[in-house]
Amino acid sequence: MRRLRADHARRVADILRQQIHTGAFADTLPGEQDLAAEHQASRNTVREALALLQDEGLIARTPRVGTTVAARKVDHGLDTLLGLQETLEGRGVVRNEVRTATRISAPPAVARRLALEPGTRVVYIERLRFLADLPLSLDLTYLAPEVGPAVLEHDLERTDIFVLLEQISGQSLGSADLAVEAVCADPHTAATLDTPPGSALLMLERLTRLDDGTPVDLEYIRLRGDRITLRGSLSRSIPEWKVL
Amino acid sequence: MRRLRADHARRVADILRQQIHTGAFADTLPGEQDLAAEHQASRNTVREALALLQDEGLIARTPRVGTTVAARKVDHGLDTLLGLQETLEGRGVVRNEVRTATRISAPPAVARRLALEPGTRVVYIERLRFLADLPLSLDLTYLAPEVGPAVLEHDLERTDIFVLLEQISGQSLGSADLAVEAVCADPHTAATLDTPPGSALLMLERLTRLDDGTPVDLEYIRLRGDRITLRGSLSRSIPEWKVL
Repeated sequence: MRRLRADHARRVADILRQQIHTGAFADTLPGEQDLAAEHQASRNTVREALALLQDEGLIARTPRVGTTVAARKVDHGLDTLLGLQETLEGRGVVRNEVRTATRISAPPAVARRLALEPGTRVVYIERLRFLADLPLSLDLTYLAPEVGPAVLEHDLERTDIFVLLEQISGQSLGSADLAVEAVCADPHTAATLDTPPGSALLMLERLTRLDDGTPVDLEYIRLRGDRITLRGSLSRSIPEWKVL
Repeated sequence: MRRLRADHARRVADILRQQIHTGAFADTLPGEQDLAAEHQASRNTVREALALLQDEGLIARTPRVGTTVAARKVDHGLDTLLGLQETLEGRGVVRNEVRTATRISAPPAVARRLALEPGTRVVYIERLRFLADLPLSLDLTYLAPEVGPAVLEHDLERTDIFVLLEQISGQSLGSADLAVEAVCADPHTAATLDTPPGSALLMLERLTRLDDGTPVDLEYIRLRGDRITLRGSLSRSIPEWKVL
């Protein structure tokens, strides 16, 4: 079982990646020699680890200047059900470019998820979401008829749909089912999100219910992998609210 | 605001993707004409949606045979803290190829996460994990000294580390902090996971504590994006156990 330098480099890169995300380095990473000492690795291994992070767009390496942090991700909370603006509170304003906001006849699979008769008219909204003028996510949203038409009357450029759903329904949201995948951006999606084709995206499907259990909001969300980390905590025992 | 066919195709592809994952189609997808009717889309749009899913490796298209499901993902639960074998119970046996199992001096960042003095000897384990002889994940694990050496004495090929941690410590696991990112596989990782370079991976960092709060297990986990979906539920209110 021969260990390759690439294995060591991956190990070092993983630790550095989390340190970059959590702000352990102000702007500049320690020099190669210091990193080599910290990780008990050769300088060649450190260089290879830094090359991996550079390929991910996380750091930039400049002769004489050294290694600087090029991108910091924002955290999207996984512990509670939050809209994007809610989860990023204090870290900037989310602006939504509404690409589509219309009524459509629900495709059968969407109708089933929302517990509607096939063909029921639902509201379909497509938003490109920006933080600090950089695209963060592309969201495709299907809303049930009891809430959808009222949502269309509000300012969708500045407001999370979750907040509107609570205003309109007069009850708080309850729970949501979430599926998280990693996919590569197809060329058209990549262009829309202003990221290179093939770059990694977090792909979420989320079905959200009102407090009374009515499913009202089915979303397909693509988050730029280089800009977002999902963060939460897990418990070994099943949380009480999930035991039905 | 002109809507392109690519926008419609993405919308159709997203619905089909979830239907494929959740087993809505046995082996074969409906024909293009049926799909076009269901989604109120043109056949060209349906064809473009199917091309997206084919590029992701989810379906195969064969003249005269039609469109068949090429890959089904397995679900990894996000609702409780589970090891891979635990979460896949009933869906097959996980086999672990142990690439490294050794003692190292903890790099400062790892020591901090495990609440140890820098330089403390920890156990480092690297495992390539298979389900049905296909690689599913590559896991890099750092274990605190009170549990690590005993873990090394057990059969790591067939047993989740979580199960061993509970046996050895005599207490159940408590909670874990989880970070989820999407990254592209670098060439060496791709070769290890037997997937094309650049393919999308779910990258997890997970710090697990014993029931008494002691952090004992820091892991960096790469899951093949084409094989795994993370699934869980979220609540609008903060679960009680998370309020400290």
